[in-house]
Amino acid sequence: MHYADLLIHSAQMMVTMKGFSDSPACGEEMSEVGIVEDGAVAIRGGMIVAVGTTAEIRAAGWSGPDTQEISAQGKVVTPGFVDPHTHVLYAGSRENELSLKLKGVPYLEILKQGGGILSTVRSTKEASDEEIKAQTSRRLQTMLSLGTTTAEVKSGYGLMVEDELRALRLIRELDESQVVDLVPTFMGAHAVPPGYSEGKFTNYVVDEMLPVIAAENLAEFCDVFCEPGVFSLESSERILLKARQLNLKLKMHADELASAGGAELAARLGVVSADHLLQASDQGIEALAEQGVIAVLLPATSFNLAKNSYARARDMIRARVPVALATDSNPGSSPTESMPLVLTIACLYLRLTPEEVLAGATINAAHAIGRAKQVGSLEIGKQGDVLILDIPNLNYLPYHFGNNPVETVIKKGKVVWG
Amino acid sequence: MHYADLLIHSAQMMVTMKGFSDSPACGEEMSEVGIVEDGAVAIRGGMIVAVGTTAEIRAAGWSGPDTQEISAQGKVVTPGFVDPHTHVLYAGSRENELSLKLKGVPYLEILKQGGGILSTVRSTKEASDEEIKAQTSRRLQTMLSLGTTTAEVKSGYGLMVEDELRALRLIRELDESQVVDLVPTFMGAHAVPPGYSEGKFTNYVVDEMLPVIAAENLAEFCDVFCEPGVFSLESSERILLKARQLNLKLKMHADELASAGGAELAARLGVVSADHLLQASDQGIEALAEQGVIAVLLPATSFNLAKNSYARARDMIRARVPVALATDSNPGSSPTESMPLVLTIACLYLRLTPEEVLAGATINAAHAIGRAKQVGSLEIGKQGDVLILDIPNLNYLPYHFGNNPVETVIKKGKVVWG
Ligand SMILES: [Zn+2]
Ligand SMILES: [Zn+2]
Repeated sequence: MHYADLLIHSAQMMVTMKGFSDSPACGEEMSEVGIVEDGAVAIRGGMIVAVGTTAEIRAAGWSGPDTQEISAQGKVVTPGFVDPHTHVLYAGSRENELSLKLKGVPYLEILKQGGGILSTVRSTKEASDEEIKAQTSRRLQTMLSLGTTTAEVKSGYGLMVEDELRALRLIRELDESQVVDLVPTFMGAHAVPPGYSEGKFTNYVVDEMLPVIAAENLAEFCDVFCEPGVFSLESSERILLKARQLNLKLKMHADELASAGGAELAARLGVVSADHLLQASDQGIEALAEQGVIAVLLPATSFNLAKNSYARARDMIRARVPVALATDSNPGSSPTESMPLVLTIACLYLRLTPEEVLAGATINAAHAIGRAKQVGSLEIGKQGDVLILDIPNLNYLPYHFGNNPVETVIKKGKVVWG
Repeated sequence: MHYADLLIHSAQMMVTMKGFSDSPACGEEMSEVGIVEDGAVAIRGGMIVAVGTTAEIRAAGWSGPDTQEISAQGKVVTPGFVDPHTHVLYAGSRENELSLKLKGVPYLEILKQGGGILSTVRSTKEASDEEIKAQTSRRLQTMLSLGTTTAEVKSGYGLMVEDELRALRLIRELDESQVVDLVPTFMGAHAVPPGYSEGKFTNYVVDEMLPVIAAENLAEFCDVFCEPGVFSLESSERILLKARQLNLKLKMHADELASAGGAELAARLGVVSADHLLQASDQGIEALAEQGVIAVLLPATSFNLAKNSYARARDMIRARVPVALATDSNPGSSPTESMPLVLTIACLYLRLTPEEVLAGATINAAHAIGRAKQVGSLEIGKQGDVLILDIPNLNYLPYHFGNNPVETVIKKGKVVWG
């Protein structure tokens, strides 16, 4: 008998999210969160080896003389949060733009003064590798303290091939140097840089960037900002088809600002996830459901943009689109690292239930980034990524807001925070 | 020469809020936040003895052999936050109501099942003194960790005289047993309990409760929930006039749900603060300005109720109403302790600037609870209540959200958190 390295036991409520490792939860399945009362989970060699009631795990003899035991009495135990959409790699911040906006300076004037996404492209380009890594590490540490144990990170503040390659290389280095597991996405088509038309830049992405990116093997996904006035449906399709040819998995920023067929294209291409979707049409939602495309919703961005415009999450769940939730962490439209606050906003404004938001932040999020076999639930054979939340039940998680509910973060069986 | 006990120095940006201890900041004054670069503040015997640049404070010789020094290099130093409107004393929480609501149960059905404010009245009545104090202490500790060093606390989950007295006694005991300074408000007129008409309960508040409350000397303010269907203008006026006779200072919950002359009454009575004010009329706002009544705005409540209904803060500032901000911390409409999140919501949804929200959370909030001579700014002779925020400038405070920007909390010259 091998003993466990770590045993978390006596949880008031353990939420396992079990049963959805093969395909994401959709419809009513998003409420089947797998609650165990007086729950326990045992971890050995970084992997989960047993999940059940405290009595069951004790009876099975998992606890040996060297097993570290942590009581979660009166608390909730969940899988680590998975944040499947972030732009967290950059240097510089844009708090001055918020202040200008509030003082009544028009957005076009802010852009003229060098604001917007291109200002982050510039500040990132000017920063040293060490500066970018230091600033990003700090954000990742904040994410970790708020319960995120796995996150997707997009490039896209480089735009030119060497800058995009550098971004993806830094994401890999950060994946190795800090605790949060990172899944890299190439998003050269994040904006059209000055001096390029959309068409010319799309050619550049397809012909110059993608082959090099794929050859370097630094990205797992390719994403594109599909939106009228940025990358059209045609340009987006060209980019994503080329990416697929090069064995990248696909994602899309779709229908954020205008209802322009983004969801329909996402479904037609069979991308892994379509993200934002504030303006997705009924047919688009239907098509996503049919193709099993995951809708990654980003309600903190809606909150921060303060336009009272949110994705139609209830319609998506009704249509059986699997829904996941993410921070969209970025210096312009969503300067936050907090999955707990995303869950609160998702309940209040997307009208999801506490069960649905947890599914969206764990197993469905893991599916959205191709990690559902490794993380997103508490099941035997998965990574030992576990949260102890200092709350009495799952309903309390979105209900009580503005503070950090996370008491302890366990990553691959080790206490890494709290 | 007496040396300082504590010297905080080298702040990237120190925001003093100086100059408004006699009367609250209004209009453009709310942007005059008193910034000192490379700032320092010296504290002795719990009180601020010097404020200036690091060079000035060093040249004046405040640092002696026993002086504790803290560097705030690269960081922002502000007065401790003052939270001037909370209902933080209670037992029990109401996360089940959020969950029922999201599952589509109508509000009336939730009330029938024993939900709403009366459920908190019941759970508080059933709890022991020790339970109430333990639960409330925990919330106050969360508030402290988020930068609140002084808070108002209302009774109002008792409703009957002995329960209200008990609540006020517990507030006094908590004021003595934990770090956050508490200012007690009697709010017997928080709801009409079952078995009473509004008129009969108003008689009870005026004739039975107020004389006893005043005689026990446990409350500094009297507040009333003035709202059609709860306490009418007439009932509110009767209660507040009696309270004034008994030497209590006055506050009002006014015009939260309906525009019904609450702000006008608040101005006519010359209350210290009128709170909520989502539906305040133009004339009401004008009247508040003329009488110097402070508008205490509670945007976290609006956020949590998700009705996209916010107070007209910009109109109030334009009319020269002094504006303060508070959490409204309570188990129903605002289950949060976070002043930092309130500041973000106030920028995004009340369209206040970073300077205005800081004024609203410090010196104007102190005026709203009669503590402007003691706290709310970094000035000689005030309490040594100081925050070190791990952010590079004031704009960053509301910009970056969902985490805790507070690195160190100093209360009366002692490091109490961080
Ligand atoms: Zn994005
Ligand atoms: Zn209130």
